[in-house]
Amino acid sequence: MNTNLTTDRPTFVTHLECSMTGERYEADQLHNLSRVGRPLLVRYDLDGVKAAVSRDTIAARETDLWRWRELLPVRKSASIVSLGEIETPLVPIPASGGANVLVKDEGRLPTGSFKARGLVMAVAMARELGVTRIAMPTNGNAGAALAAYASRCGIETIILAPQETPEINIREMALQGARVYRVNGQIDDCGAIVGKGAAEGRWFDFSTLKEPYRIEGKKTMGLELAAQMGWELPDAIFYPTGGGTGLIGMWKAFDELEKLGWIGAKRPRMFAVQATGCAPIVRAFEKGVDHAERWENAATVAAGIRVPRAVGDFLILRAVRESGGTALAVDDDAILAAVDACAKRDGVLICPEGGATLAAYRKALGEGLVDAEERVILFNCATGLKYPMPAAGEMLDRNAEIDLASL
Amino acid sequence: MNTNLTTDRPTFVTHLECSMTGERYEADQLHNLSRVGRPLLVRYDLDGVKAAVSRDTIAARETDLWRWRELLPVRKSASIVSLGEIETPLVPIPASGGANVLVKDEGRLPTGSFKARGLVMAVAMARELGVTRIAMPTNGNAGAALAAYASRCGIETIILAPQETPEINIREMALQGARVYRVNGQIDDCGAIVGKGAAEGRWFDFSTLKEPYRIEGKKTMGLELAAQMGWELPDAIFYPTGGGTGLIGMWKAFDELEKLGWIGAKRPRMFAVQATGCAPIVRAFEKGVDHAERWENAATVAAGIRVPRAVGDFLILRAVRESGGTALAVDDDAILAAVDACAKRDGVLICPEGGATLAAYRKALGEGLVDAEERVILFNCATGLKYPMPAAGEMLDRNAEIDLASL
Repeated sequence: MNTNLTTDRPTFVTHLECSMTGERYEADQLHNLSRVGRPLLVRYDLDGVKAAVSRDTIAARETDLWRWRELLPVRKSASIVSLGEIETPLVPIPASGGANVLVKDEGRLPTGSFKARGLVMAVAMARELGVTRIAMPTNGNAGAALAAYASRCGIETIILAPQETPEINIREMALQGARVYRVNGQIDDCGAIVGKGAAEGRWFDFSTLKEPYRIEGKKTMGLELAAQMGWELPDAIFYPTGGGTGLIGMWKAFDELEKLGWIGAKRPRMFAVQATGCAPIVRAFEKGVDHAERWENAATVAAGIRVPRAVGDFLILRAVRESGGTALAVDDDAILAAVDACAKRDGVLICPEGGATLAAYRKALGEGLVDAEERVILFNCATGLKYPMPAAGEMLDRNAEIDLASL
Repeated sequence: MNTNLTTDRPTFVTHLECSMTGERYEADQLHNLSRVGRPLLVRYDLDGVKAAVSRDTIAARETDLWRWRELLPVRKSASIVSLGEIETPLVPIPASGGANVLVKDEGRLPTGSFKARGLVMAVAMARELGVTRIAMPTNGNAGAALAAYASRCGIETIILAPQETPEINIREMALQGARVYRVNGQIDDCGAIVGKGAAEGRWFDFSTLKEPYRIEGKKTMGLELAAQMGWELPDAIFYPTGGGTGLIGMWKAFDELEKLGWIGAKRPRMFAVQATGCAPIVRAFEKGVDHAERWENAATVAAGIRVPRAVGDFLILRAVRESGGTALAVDDDAILAAVDACAKRDGVLICPEGGATLAAYRKALGEGLVDAEERVILFNCATGLKYPMPAAGEMLDRNAEIDLASL
């Protein structure tokens, strides 16, 4: 059995700090945003980590997310609520992508999306810190992950989703024990209601980056990539960017790994991918500003990146710029064409947000922002099974003469 | 990167033999059923395997399905068409199952079901042996796996599914490049059409057990279980039984592992689980006969086990009897209640066929066929996301006053 879940490990969290001002906050207490309304980042005694474990020690453990315990905030093994957070595979897509393109298939995680990484961590910390009632705005996948982990350990959940959230996501959350409501608005409108209830003390607010631990869970995408690629990072990463927790998290992971001496100074160019129907980060990147204005009338088939306003906007923009990458928008037609090509030619059913990364990669290739020889990772953040697919299935009458040659 | 896919390995297939008569057939040739119309089984030089690798050698490899190469039929690494066949996790379900119950969550495999195991192997062999056109009857998941693997390597696929197959499965197959037809009948009616076309030389017939390699792929469920549990098999396995390839495959795997000296003589009791609306194996088991009559008017929410007639019936019945297990049927209400309990209480969204195993386990517990202290594995054969879920999601008007206390 998986010893990562049963072996106690030393932990190295020293404190949290405001991502904007650097102000210090105590560890092991409940926190939402910092005093200036910005995300908190967890800091570790990395010298301590370095003295305690080597990258080979970690590589020798079972490969799930919990092998990274020394770089994660959970103090007690008993706080962990696990549904089997396996290391997700890197799948080549030679036909639709190219010879050097790998999809990190996050749809294999519990609840079928990468949201499991953030939520498994945040729920463990909420449990460790005594939270019993959580509310969250979601476009679908985050709410499903929260519902699963929270129900498993008896934490009550209230989830608010935009009206246009796919039916399958609403049903999945409810079946996994959450109380789910649709709201006539976007995810930030849902977030406003959650924030009001939190201010009234009705529940703990689990909005993206409004509690500090989801980012630590998402960080494991960067840690895993490093280990899977032999501690040599890829040349470029295309990441579907809504709230941007994963992009910020990976950037933090690479920094921690370098400080540990487990990787060198080389960084991938980070490509933040959005849809043309909701591209606040792309607009801010192009304007050269640090913060992104709200995107009005957001609309895209890629629901996961339909996020008009991101509280971590400046962190996303900073990582993209520091990396020498860029922010790119692709339209819905390109997204759906990429999903179709990847399924038909490579047999990989990616989600629309994953399709956006493939479309953006092709666009970047065309514009010379990336070279076909470079090693590239595309993040497929969820299983394509959660999204609408084109109708099919002509009827055959078995009682009639079937023209087999025509099949 | 995964060296299991790139390292050539010695292979040990000696021949195939008829599962009924023992008649010998040559390896490395295309085969369907034996001369007497029964499945062929692949045989290995197990002494050769034993001399070439130890269980520790295999345990030290990356954990995907291809670590078992010496016990698999694929000769050339270049024949492998991989979509990332990870080792599936064992997830405890203490609330809905019990302290000693683990779900093997096969929904994490490519295309979201355990059918990937059989089809990844059968497609590799078809490719190795020069097949260019395949047809298959399916209740959904097998067709999806075939479509993905075959499309990836340019093999054409024609898939026939019963009229009542869920829309999501039909669409998934088509999106992954198959030509998909619905037929007004059951899976064996679809199979008759496939058989007719195969007899006319239009395509190769990939029906369950009608080609010999899917069973070798499914066998890896047994191999993995042994490795994951420290080479100590569980006390009981509950397996949702349609065509029964997995049950037959695991039983074969245990036999091979014992001959290799990697496990002892202890076997799990095998519980073949069916739905009361389609229970031909249960009826045959109770009658004490070796073959199962076709089940007329088959009907159950668990589409994967809606199989009125299984060509490997006698192999399923033999394994169940030899193991000291039994064949059990549960009704749709019990299946849906089990799915609901597992999702709400343990946060694991199993499929109806997986729900059938949980319902059957509870029934077996009640009847004293299994003890709460025994270590039990339930097979969840696919992600619950592929199946209908109850409606949910009350509307909130963000422009009105929302009573937060009522949420």
